[in-house]
Amino acid sequence: MNKINPIRDTDDEAIKLAGSLICNAMHGVLAAHDPASPHPHVSRVQLSTSSQGNLVTLISSLSSHTKCLMANPVCSILIGEPGKGDPLAHPRISVPLLAQPVERQSPEHDQLRASHLRHYPKAELYVDFGDFSFFQLEPQGAALNGGFGKAYELTKDEVNVAIMKGRSND
Amino acid sequence: MNKINPIRDTDDEAIKLAGSLICNAMHGVLAAHDPASPHPHVSRVQLSTSSQGNLVTLISSLSSHTKCLMANPVCSILIGEPGKGDPLAHPRISVPLLAQPVERQSPEHDQLRASHLRHYPKAELYVDFGDFSFFQLEPQGAALNGGFGKAYELTKDEVNVAIMKGRSND
Repeated sequence: MNKINPIRDTDDEAIKLAGSLICNAMHGVLAAHDPASPHPHVSRVQLSTSSQGNLVTLISSLSSHTKCLMANPVCSILIGEPGKGDPLAHPRISVPLLAQPVERQSPEHDQLRASHLRHYPKAELYVDFGDFSFFQLEPQGAALNGGFGKAYELTKDEVNVAIMKGRSND
Repeated sequence: MNKINPIRDTDDEAIKLAGSLICNAMHGVLAAHDPASPHPHVSRVQLSTSSQGNLVTLISSLSSHTKCLMANPVCSILIGEPGKGDPLAHPRISVPLLAQPVERQSPEHDQLRASHLRHYPKAELYVDFGDFSFFQLEPQGAALNGGFGKAYELTKDEVNVAIMKGRSND
């Protein structure tokens, strides 16, 4: 236990695990800088992916996390749901991100909307409401923890590849 | 949906829900400021409570989150696990915190150790390892989301009371 969490070389298995965690996730925990508080803002958000290898979320402009991301796009997300037993034994991935609002009139909006609705069919109910909008969340790298003693650090490019591969396995 | 998330008055039901979420949690997602990055640091951590109404975690000094908390004690945690269906429909609570390392020789260490091991019996395996230490996480308030349209803001005192009541219901 004194050598817990050595960083392993990123191999195909790690890329596959990262892609699977991110592409199968139905939510993530977003941490953002809060212009109204010294404490990081943490919230649960919807999560889908784009064909360019980015993360995507749909949030209401009435929510406090939208205010945080508009004030400062530098944020992070934790993905991976613990199953039974020790929650720290289950894989999870932490991804530093840059958040970019997606204009409703942009060509990519329709693509992201269609892809997000395949992941969350029930979001059809509110996706077009005026206060809801998409953010692209561009990975800047990732820390993957595959369980005790299985830690990896992924580059930005490796995360993009993991997501694109994970999407094609859907 | 245009009036999503109005803040309701904190009542006994909200206090009970907050205490239940916090005291029954087997993990939380900690967001901390990272001295080595502009991105918030997010990680999954163990979580128990103290009889004084604080949160408690046990982490290794080898982990990157210990380095964050030692550099800056201002952090936050998200607690509450989604069940089936829409993850945003399940209750969760976000708690801004101040982290204080617990000295191994202090009188409170033995109390926190015993209480933490009641919550995580298997932590007995590593709780006394030299690199593991407890942190008390002092709530500075809380944002409780009981599901769509059920939002509450709790004061520091209300969170302490919620935890103390939640512990007595164990």
